[in-house]
Amino acid sequence: MEYLTGVRDKEVMEISELKKSGKEGQKVWVNGAVHTIRDMGTIAFVVLRKREGLLQCVYEKKKSGFDLKIVREGAAVEAEGVVEKNEKAPNGIEVHLEGIHILSEPEAVRMPLAVSKWKLDTSLEAKLNYRSISLRNIRERAKFRVQEGLTRAFRDFLYSQGFTEIHTPKIGARGAEGGANIFKLDYFHRPAVLAQSPQFYKQMMVGAFDRVFETAPVFRAEKHSTKRHLNEYTSLDFEMGYIDGFEDIMAMETGYLQYAVKLLKKEYERELCILDITLPEVSRIPAVRFSEIKERVSEKYGHKMKNPFDLEPEEELLIGRYVKEEWGSDFVFVTHYPSKKRPFYAMDDPEDSRYTLSFDLLFGGMEVTTGGQRIHDYRMLTEKIAARGMSKEGMEPYLDAFKHGMPPHGGLGIGLERLTMKLAGEDNVRETTLFPRDLSRLEP
Amino acid sequence: MEYLTGVRDKEVMEISELKKSGKEGQKVWVNGAVHTIRDMGTIAFVVLRKREGLLQCVYEKKKSGFDLKIVREGAAVEAEGVVEKNEKAPNGIEVHLEGIHILSEPEAVRMPLAVSKWKLDTSLEAKLNYRSISLRNIRERAKFRVQEGLTRAFRDFLYSQGFTEIHTPKIGARGAEGGANIFKLDYFHRPAVLAQSPQFYKQMMVGAFDRVFETAPVFRAEKHSTKRHLNEYTSLDFEMGYIDGFEDIMAMETGYLQYAVKLLKKEYERELCILDITLPEVSRIPAVRFSEIKERVSEKYGHKMKNPFDLEPEEELLIGRYVKEEWGSDFVFVTHYPSKKRPFYAMDDPEDSRYTLSFDLLFGGMEVTTGGQRIHDYRMLTEKIAARGMSKEGMEPYLDAFKHGMPPHGGLGIGLERLTMKLAGEDNVRETTLFPRDLSRLEP
Repeated sequence: MEYLTGVRDKEVMEISELKKSGKEGQKVWVNGAVHTIRDMGTIAFVVLRKREGLLQCVYEKKKSGFDLKIVREGAAVEAEGVVEKNEKAPNGIEVHLEGIHILSEPEAVRMPLAVSKWKLDTSLEAKLNYRSISLRNIRERAKFRVQEGLTRAFRDFLYSQGFTEIHTPKIGARGAEGGANIFKLDYFHRPAVLAQSPQFYKQMMVGAFDRVFETAPVFRAEKHSTKRHLNEYTSLDFEMGYIDGFEDIMAMETGYLQYAVKLLKKEYERELCILDITLPEVSRIPAVRFSEIKERVSEKYGHKMKNPFDLEPEEELLIGRYVKEEWGSDFVFVTHYPSKKRPFYAMDDPEDSRYTLSFDLLFGGMEVTTGGQRIHDYRMLTEKIAARGMSKEGMEPYLDAFKHGMPPHGGLGIGLERLTMKLAGEDNVRETTLFPRDLSRLEP
Repeated sequence: MEYLTGVRDKEVMEISELKKSGKEGQKVWVNGAVHTIRDMGTIAFVVLRKREGLLQCVYEKKKSGFDLKIVREGAAVEAEGVVEKNEKAPNGIEVHLEGIHILSEPEAVRMPLAVSKWKLDTSLEAKLNYRSISLRNIRERAKFRVQEGLTRAFRDFLYSQGFTEIHTPKIGARGAEGGANIFKLDYFHRPAVLAQSPQFYKQMMVGAFDRVFETAPVFRAEKHSTKRHLNEYTSLDFEMGYIDGFEDIMAMETGYLQYAVKLLKKEYERELCILDITLPEVSRIPAVRFSEIKERVSEKYGHKMKNPFDLEPEEELLIGRYVKEEWGSDFVFVTHYPSKKRPFYAMDDPEDSRYTLSFDLLFGGMEVTTGGQRIHDYRMLTEKIAARGMSKEGMEPYLDAFKHGMPPHGGLGIGLERLTMKLAGEDNVRETTLFPRDLSRLEP
């Protein structure tokens, strides 16, 4: 028997430690994956890929004391050497090698993708097929660090606002939204479905915790094959009680975006720089009615409306353009969506029941959030279910919460991969999805 | 068009604000759900349930200016009144009512469960059937606040240790561990499965990010009907590269537990108090070999070993007892599990290949974590796959990562609901699962 007492101090150093003043001229141990080797004849640069970035190691045959041939691209190594400043090296430092230890070697002679290039010059298809390889490219992996920042900001901000994190089941007896877009499975010989959203559960939990959130996968069996749809994605969901109106939900999302921008600036500067991301202005976000912005766009750009109850993707793009040109904003809340296009639990506008107290948030002309106020009154809810010709069957546990009292409440769901995509300036949501699932892709 | 500028200041106050010095004697606005009403004749106590706890409001017919009859248990209300100190009241304060506004009313006359009692005196079955109601009990909901603390600590600690958060797909073409315990579904007319664990993906991502973690649902179609098994649960997973041995994984988990205890003490004191939880000692955690602890337990308690390759639940309990009695610890790492009982990717002990460089962490005599070092060498991995009579088919994307170089690495998976269960002193994992899924339960 022996004791574990916590994380051990290691001799090997991270880049941030090497950069600290006073380290210059000192002998250090470092490790990493051999990202690339540039052999210049008398000297060679062995660039290591570490979690904090690239570290240039300088090999000189006489001083380094080993044969460069034993080092291969893709190997994992531990090396010793002396830290020196070098403005031209990544991160401004380099290590003059005095020894190396090969931790592991690749089996293959060549990488299937040129990951050590600054921009990975290959098709999306190839990137996704070789996901474990393509993410070894510094720019590719940086997108997912930014994605981490967005998720982390969501949680940290909501903790600070008194929200409780919940974990709701992904396998259930029926879908929250209904409809055909549900994946079905066999659950010990009973029919079951995969959750399209945590909608019912998060509403039920408002009665217990007042404010809840979840960051988890959702599943949509939609037969879309577009650049913006996925069949599995990460949804950032929250739901909050005791609201005065659905403006409280938009205000909370605005607060989140402000916090996210701050956190990214503070903790993810390296990745923002790698991806050349300019953070959007979020100090104020315009909110405009659905019918109003539709008219404005139609007027300004001569766009012909096809569907008066919904926004076509091209119309969203024009709204994005309008909002940028007229109000100088990358974001816009489009409010009061037609009741027809919103689920039964959406609260209708008491001033005009053809519309709902709901919104979408568009970012750069694309929907990244859907939210709004929900019905909290049991009778109003059951009447709307009946009016839509829906059955209450199977909805009893959901309705129980309302039967026994629920505060006025509302919430939203943010598509994490889309938000990352727009922030990173990508044009396909698969670029910012670790392992996308779509009509044709189930692997890797 | 109008602008949203962030979270608005509200007049209504939370309990922590009301408790601040200087608030005494002041008129305030508060809101909450009517948890219980105790009518004493001349005065009445209207206790509000808020996210921070219970708030006692004092009703006096003459002073309060409304009829108590309009207030019903289960209603959501906004009230005005004057804050006063009262040592006997929950949180040491009360509000003397001067007005009330009913935000919403329950449809039903009676709650199906007596949620306002201190301990919810009902069966687990009833609690789960009425989950949205039973969690309105202060003790019941507190368990899930503690669960939040455990998850939050996991992420925050790993962020501080240079880990990147990832989101891996839950729908895939094949399972990571193989075997029969996989839920199957139809994915656009192709056979697909639900992820038993993020194992393959997190290993693949070590090659890109060095250290990764995920907190997400996993799905096991196991036909167990026990107090400790769920068919869907939240797994806290991490995987880290450049380890010197599997001891690094155990050290990282010990560090996490130490951080979790600290965070719970700091941010969740209220809930620890409600649940009467004494936090375990985690400054050092004993680690003992599988075969050694089996013998020790057999010797001390006269336990007859049935299965030399695995631990029976009753054996785990005895180990828990032994470790507590002999080494004064609630936790123990049981190391070097037999190779037979570990998956193909587990690294065998080079000193004795019948055993693996792996471990389970037991907490109070129950497994809450499985982890270990993984094979990082492509040849060793493919040879082990062949030796087990498995096929490489469908594993190519996983094997690609190794073919092109992977550092020595390892990781673990923690069952969040089990960890919460043991911490809260519960004896059924369903007590600490928001909406459990088991052989018979698919709803709510």
